[in-house]
Order: sequence, then structure tokens, then C-alpha cells
Amino acid sequence: MPDYAIAVHGGAGAIHKNLEREAEYRAVLDAALDAGKSLLEKGGSAVDASVAAVAVMEDSPLYNAGRGAVFNANAFCELDAAVMDGKSRKAGGVAGVTEIKNPVYAALAVLRHSRHVLLGGAGAHDFARLHDVATVENAYFHTEERLRQLHEAQEKGRVQLDFSEDGQAKGTVGAVARDQNGDLAAATSTGGLTNKSAGRIGDTPVTGAGTYAENGICAISCTGTGDEIMRIVMAYDIAAQMRYTGADFTAAAKAALDKLAAIDGEGGLIGITAKGEIYLPFNSKGMFRGSFRAGDAKNFTAIF
Amino acid sequence: MPDYAIAVHGGAGAIHKNLEREAEYRAVLDAALDAGKSLLEKGGSAVDASVAAVAVMEDSPLYNAGRGAVFNANAFCELDAAVMDGKSRKAGGVAGVTEIKNPVYAALAVLRHSRHVLLGGAGAHDFARLHDVATVENAYFHTEERLRQLHEAQEKGRVQLDFSEDGQAKGTVGAVARDQNGDLAAATSTGGLTNKSAGRIGDTPVTGAGTYAENGICAISCTGTGDEIMRIVMAYDIAAQMRYTGADFTAAAKAALDKLAAIDGEGGLIGITAKGEIYLPFNSKGMFRGSFRAGDAKNFTAIF
Repeated sequence: MPDYAIAVHGGAGAIHKNLEREAEYRAVLDAALDAGKSLLEKGGSAVDASVAAVAVMEDSPLYNAGRGAVFNANAFCELDAAVMDGKSRKAGGVAGVTEIKNPVYAALAVLRHSRHVLLGGAGAHDFARLHDVATVENAYFHTEERLRQLHEAQEKGRVQLDFSEDGQAKGTVGAVARDQNGDLAAATSTGGLTNKSAGRIGDTPVTGAGTYAENGICAISCTGTGDEIMRIVMAYDIAAQMRYTGADFTAAAKAALDKLAAIDGEGGLIGITAKGEIYLPFNSKGMFRGSFRAGDAKNFTAIF
Repeated sequence: MPDYAIAVHGGAGAIHKNLEREAEYRAVLDAALDAGKSLLEKGGSAVDASVAAVAVMEDSPLYNAGRGAVFNANAFCELDAAVMDGKSRKAGGVAGVTEIKNPVYAALAVLRHSRHVLLGGAGAHDFARLHDVATVENAYFHTEERLRQLHEAQEKGRVQLDFSEDGQAKGTVGAVARDQNGDLAAATSTGGLTNKSAGRIGDTPVTGAGTYAENGICAISCTGTGDEIMRIVMAYDIAAQMRYTGADFTAAAKAALDKLAAIDGEGGLIGITAKGEIYLPFNSKGMFRGSFRAGDAKNFTAIF
């Protein structure tokens, strides 16, 4: 059987070197990798593994997704998530959901049970409830630290990536996986940008922007300034370079990140190729990231 | 000065050859082309011309956008629209709006005034109102014929492209333009699929799926089964083929439409290249379409 492998990220940005609680952040990356690989080693699918890894990070208040989502400009949490199956090339996403505990589970329900790719707002809630995805009050996502970050952003008149100046860094989360069948998948989940406009849909739930998977090429989950990532269709641009020019992942991702920088965007991504090679490039100061390949003695995790 | 040019579409699908009211459908395509070219001939921008052309089609009850939008599964109209500026590569879109008379104007407001690319639902409404985009009650979009189509779709248990069996065909609308500066733009607007799930966001407002523009390459507006168009990132896939393989528009569009057919999708697109060449390919029975290039004696329009 070919090797299985998984990679995760917890967001990219201007993470301060004096990051407190680094061990806690790394522990969540480890737990996310473990959740994914426990499925993969038993023959589970790349889709299930990437979703399981993302769900662990959604449940942590440390990362900007699920429980730890940032506030929008109305002091409300609106979450986006997606998952894509590289084998069927089916995708599922939810946008602007406010009462779903694990948006990535709602995205999976869309992938599995809807003829559509992306559901937003109340329609997404109704669909998720119909498929037994757990719901919560929006207050579940509210934390004092996020509110402080919102007030800080509003005082400065900024819409910002979720990395506060005090070293308490958080970010969008994602996972990519290759299973024992050689199938690829990608999943991403986020609270978006602190002080974002109400209703803003970012790159995360958009097929080809923040999330993309295609067997035979690669699976990708992006993080960073999502509006700019959408404009360059970043995840699909990397896959397209690989398919149409024969570029390797490193060169294709570098070209895409250069395009992102050229329009004043910043960010990073995790990618896994058809052969199970893992790449974790970024153009920001840091990116929470981790990976595991079958046969490795232990998980790899890093921030800077 | 280089030539200016514009193309429009009013949707693709199984349009019946015995289409009644063909002259009325063509008259709207003509009016849309006229609205765009009157701006272009005076030196107006490709963005303004494509938006003006789309707005004319939104105001017609014949096409599935704006006034003529189809009903979702809840007998409610939820509309999507986008516009992209090939010069700046900035994009603006709205998803699931229910009370905006011309969704393409709201998309233009996002492009011009938001730091974001895509706004959904209530947030999109608030933003549009703030920028003086006209609003209406959802009932503005309701017509007896659309309700009949919904009931027919629900009886048959179908989610369908908006082409009813009686020859009353309608569809998503879009425009692409090249202005006298050589700048490109694309705009698209839709009511989506009859009997679509509430909250469903299609390809139309998604940068790279249904709408894409990049100076030096092309501008594209798509129509058809949007969920499948999203999965193959159709508009950007065409641009990527042209950039990365040197394919001409015809070959790139054919390859993309073949991919669409391979996952049981159907549709078409309109494209304009950096040189102002216009292409109107589709893999369905027909596509409402029209074009005009500076120097032409009159507008071209066609359905089959």
C-alpha cells in the first residue's frame, strides 16, 4: 500500500517570536495530526482525516476557527469552512454560519448530501441541522480576548489577520491528507478577519481559492489575507501550474505566493502531492504548521 | 486607439427550437449591448460597460437575473452577482441577496468601496444600502411564470437550469468588455437554479468560477450548471491554460467545457481576449448571446 500522510496549519501572519503559550499551540497541532493519522492508519479516507484534523483545531479556543473564531465588525462571529475530495472532485462549503459548532462538519454534510457546493447563512444552518450537525448559540464563540482584539482593531481602523501584537497569535486552520488508496483531500475552516464587514465571505469556503484537491496533482489549504487569495485563485493556480507547465509544488507555490505579495497579500499554504510529498510554504513571519508521514517517528510541528 | 468590444450572454441550456418570443429575447440582448457600447465609444471603462449591459438584462423579466430571477426551494428569490476589473484584478461580488434591485450594482459597490471581495446575505444588503444601491421587496422578483416553474420542478423533484419545457427559456446573464484603453472586465448576475436549496451560492459571484478578468489574457463570464462550474474553477482554468500553455481561447475553452461535461455539467461562456477577440462557446443546446466590436455595422445576436 502506498504511504499515507497528513499536514495541518493553524494560520499564517506576523506571529511574534515571543509567542507565549507556544507549547499549547503546538499541542493542538499535534492533536489535530493525531486525529487525522489515527484514521489514515486504519485505512480511513483522506476526506475523513482532513475533516477530523480540522475539527480538533476548531474545538480549540487558541485558533481562529470554530470555538476561537474572531469577531466581525458587528461583534458577531461568522464562520466559513470547506472540504474537497480529490477523488470525486466534489466539494462542500459553508459561508457566514453563526450557530454551527464545527463548520467543517457542515461543509462535509454539503459535500456528502447536497447537489450544491456552497451554502450560506440561514440556508446553510437549515441544511446542517437536517443532517444532524451540532449547533450552538453564537455566544459559544465569544471570548474576552477576541473582543479585546476587535476593539483594538476598531480603534486603529483596521481589518486584520488574526495575530495580535501581544504574541497571542491565532489563525485560520486547515488540513490536507493522502490516504492509503492514494486519494487526496483538503479541508479549511476560519473565523475570517477581525473587524471584517458583516457578510464577508473569504477564500476558505471557495473551491480553488482557499481549498482545493485533485487526485493526481495535489491538495491545498491556504491561509492569510483571504481577499487577495481569492483574487489570484491561489490554490487552483498552484494546481494549474503543476498540470499545465509541469512545475513542481515548490516552484508553483512560490510563484503563487509572489503573486499574492504583488497585490499586497500575505499568507501561506499547506500542500500534499499525489506522491504524498508535503510542502508548508508561507511568505509571512510565521505559520503554525505540522505534518506526519507514515513511517515517521513522530509529528513535525513548527511556527517560525 | 485600440478597438473596443463587448459581448453578452443570457444563459445556456436546453433551449427549445420553438422558442416563442424569440424577438423579445433578442431585443434585450441588443439593448444590453447598446448600453455597454454607448459607454465604450465615449471612452468609458470596461467595468462600467459590462455592469451597464448586465443591469439591462437584470431589469428584464425574461432573463434569470434581477427582475426575472427564479425561485429557490423555499419560493424565495436569492440572487448572486459579481464584477471583476482586469486592470486592477480587483473583484466584487454579492451572494444570496434578496432585496437589491440590481445585484450587479451591489457587486460594483463591493469592488469600488470594500476591502473585501464577496459579501453575503444581510451584510451585503447593509453594505449596498450604505452605498446607495436601490433596494426592493423580494416580491419585486416574484412572477407567476417562475412560481409555475418552481412547482413543476418540485413535482419532478428536480433542481434545474432555468429552461422550462414550454420554450420559455431564460438564464443567468453576463457581459465581458474591452475598452479603448485595452482594459478588460467581466460581470455576471443570476437568480441561480430553480428549486435550489436556500442559501445556495453558485459560480456567478465566485472569482475564477463564473467570473474572471485579467488584462493581457482574457475576461470571462460563465453560465450553466454552476455547482459543476465551481468544482472545475472554469473561468480561471481557461485563463490559466492560456497563460501557462499558450493555448488560444478556443482550445482552452473547449478543454474546460469538456471537463465540465465529464462531471455531467453543461453550460457555456463568453470571453474576450487582450486583443479584443470575442468567443461565445457552449456545450448545451443553445445560449442566448450577442456581441459588438468597434466598426461593426450592427450587433450580432444568436440563440442556437
